[in-house]
Amino acid sequence: MSFSKRLQTLSRSLATLRVDYLLITHLPNVRYLCGFTGSAGALLAGGPEPVFFTDGRYTMQAHQEVQGAMVRIEQKAPLAAATEWIGRKRGRTLGIEGDHLTVAAGARVRGLLPKPWRLRAVSSVVERQRMIKDSAEIELTRKAVNLGSSLFRSLVKSVRPGVAEATVAAKLQYAARVAGAEAMSFDTIVAAGPRSALPHGRASAAAIPRRGLVVLDYGVILSGYCSDMTRTVSVGRASAKERAWYTAVLEAQIAGIAAVRAGATAGEVDAAARKVLKQSGLGKHFTHSTGHGVGLEIHESPRLAAGETAVLQSGMVVTIEPGVYIPGEGGVRIEDMVLVTQSGCEVLTPTNKELITI
Amino acid sequence: MSFSKRLQTLSRSLATLRVDYLLITHLPNVRYLCGFTGSAGALLAGGPEPVFFTDGRYTMQAHQEVQGAMVRIEQKAPLAAATEWIGRKRGRTLGIEGDHLTVAAGARVRGLLPKPWRLRAVSSVVERQRMIKDSAEIELTRKAVNLGSSLFRSLVKSVRPGVAEATVAAKLQYAARVAGAEAMSFDTIVAAGPRSALPHGRASAAAIPRRGLVVLDYGVILSGYCSDMTRTVSVGRASAKERAWYTAVLEAQIAGIAAVRAGATAGEVDAAARKVLKQSGLGKHFTHSTGHGVGLEIHESPRLAAGETAVLQSGMVVTIEPGVYIPGEGGVRIEDMVLVTQSGCEVLTPTNKELITI
Repeated sequence: MSFSKRLQTLSRSLATLRVDYLLITHLPNVRYLCGFTGSAGALLAGGPEPVFFTDGRYTMQAHQEVQGAMVRIEQKAPLAAATEWIGRKRGRTLGIEGDHLTVAAGARVRGLLPKPWRLRAVSSVVERQRMIKDSAEIELTRKAVNLGSSLFRSLVKSVRPGVAEATVAAKLQYAARVAGAEAMSFDTIVAAGPRSALPHGRASAAAIPRRGLVVLDYGVILSGYCSDMTRTVSVGRASAKERAWYTAVLEAQIAGIAAVRAGATAGEVDAAARKVLKQSGLGKHFTHSTGHGVGLEIHESPRLAAGETAVLQSGMVVTIEPGVYIPGEGGVRIEDMVLVTQSGCEVLTPTNKELITI
Repeated sequence: MSFSKRLQTLSRSLATLRVDYLLITHLPNVRYLCGFTGSAGALLAGGPEPVFFTDGRYTMQAHQEVQGAMVRIEQKAPLAAATEWIGRKRGRTLGIEGDHLTVAAGARVRGLLPKPWRLRAVSSVVERQRMIKDSAEIELTRKAVNLGSSLFRSLVKSVRPGVAEATVAAKLQYAARVAGAEAMSFDTIVAAGPRSALPHGRASAAAIPRRGLVVLDYGVILSGYCSDMTRTVSVGRASAKERAWYTAVLEAQIAGIAAVRAGATAGEVDAAARKVLKQSGLGKHFTHSTGHGVGLEIHESPRLAAGETAVLQSGMVVTIEPGVYIPGEGGVRIEDMVLVTQSGCEVLTPTNKELITI
């Protein structure tokens, strides 16, 4: 892991922003920057030496995990300890994570901070850095994606008419846990028959019908990194209409992947996938964006959505997941994770995309 | 459900606080007050008529679920829509949930709010109300607790030497899901052998040893309400020392339960349990508090901890869960959920507390 390097990169961003120190409390950001995986801690970055504050419950864990920062075990809450510590240092502007720190916590920090220090809420500084995965992160992402994909065959076997969607999800989660996943990346989606028309059809108590499409969307977390994949299968022979939806979505997904390269905008990738569905007359049924970044969190920047001007860069990991949803009838979504490269992208998800009939 | 009654009670609190409207964004609070279970919405309480704001993704769900408040489906983000709506109303002070709203969201609300309106961050107004469960909540809590307890027998059967803790947890989670649980209340704790000395020993890849104590701490969510229970079992015959720990913790747990009644303070209940462990010479190994409230969230007020002056009231639902943890050797925790009554309490968890030997 190159935690020191990540912290150095952050220091340069802070200098540009004229922030002397940044108080980092959002746990995925803390983990990214210094390796701590516990649930109470604050990291002060930007000074001559980064400092990580936690309490006595995490003494052993902090010393085992934290790299690139001095560890301080404090009696006080980490936020208070960090603020008091900084009050004794030279500088003027303490940044806080405005998108994560609560109003009440912000007020507490402000109350503890002596003059001439002042607070400044900053947005997405660490998150922007996290968009570009380094080699260690890419390796961990590959492992999570491969673990997720390795569960797909047995998942498909559990999809049978009469079985509750929730049972299919529960079997998957059991298999994931036994295979070493720390947790699922999000509530597993098993949406069968008319429910496949719900873009976020969390597995319900409903039974898989005798025929119809089934959207399966799931991910696992391994060493903190998330996987995310979707496949749509057909119970019984798909109708001509369902096959047409499937073919159109698959073509859109392939077109989206083909549009990914360093230098393209997020909006261009979305447009490439959307164009195929518009040409198939299904444009209005593609009701969400084409994809999103994935890493320590399941939804990260960039958003691959209409009009987004963010420019893709090598090392970003994003999903490409167009779908169509016809209310009352059914839906199709196909999703891979891809790694952006200079010349295009590498599809990380190894699972086949032919329509499977059960 | 008595959502209107809950909203009326809240209105009276707001009048006392001299807050004209409260903007509620913490989702468990939103669910408690108007029934909405989706993941994007804001509730304005306190005016002549409560108003719930969400976006087009939740049109059907909001109309199906929301009670006691007018539903507005908006193009804008719920927070922005609610703030603009209030700017057109009479009043002066808009409350926000300081413990939940982020600094950035608070600044957005402030920026949208016209004169003479001003913002005031308030703390735990809805949470204080939620401490006292109404009859509908108590019924739902009973159902969640009973579902959780019904899984215990098969959980114990899966605890076998050589089986990974994570496999035991995965089997439990599978059974819970199939039995109708929406999710687990928290990451299941399966902590075997020396790991039982970790108060929060999340199920790991470690195998259950041939002999030793195993702490099993888990809960399910049903209709939004959480259950929480802990039992400690012994693989192989427990040693005299382990039996002594078990007996002391059980006596402490029973003493804690005996101290619960409306009018007692949270600190008194903690002291009653702690006294037993001190008398057994195990006081220093009881390293956490005696319990916590449970409801729509797994950790709610009151905290049953040393020195807490909060007074217990009829209708509170709390855990009683003393434990001892001897580093490198093992630990014991026993936990029930109880309902506070005028004369004492009702133990909700029906599971036996004899030491089970596997």
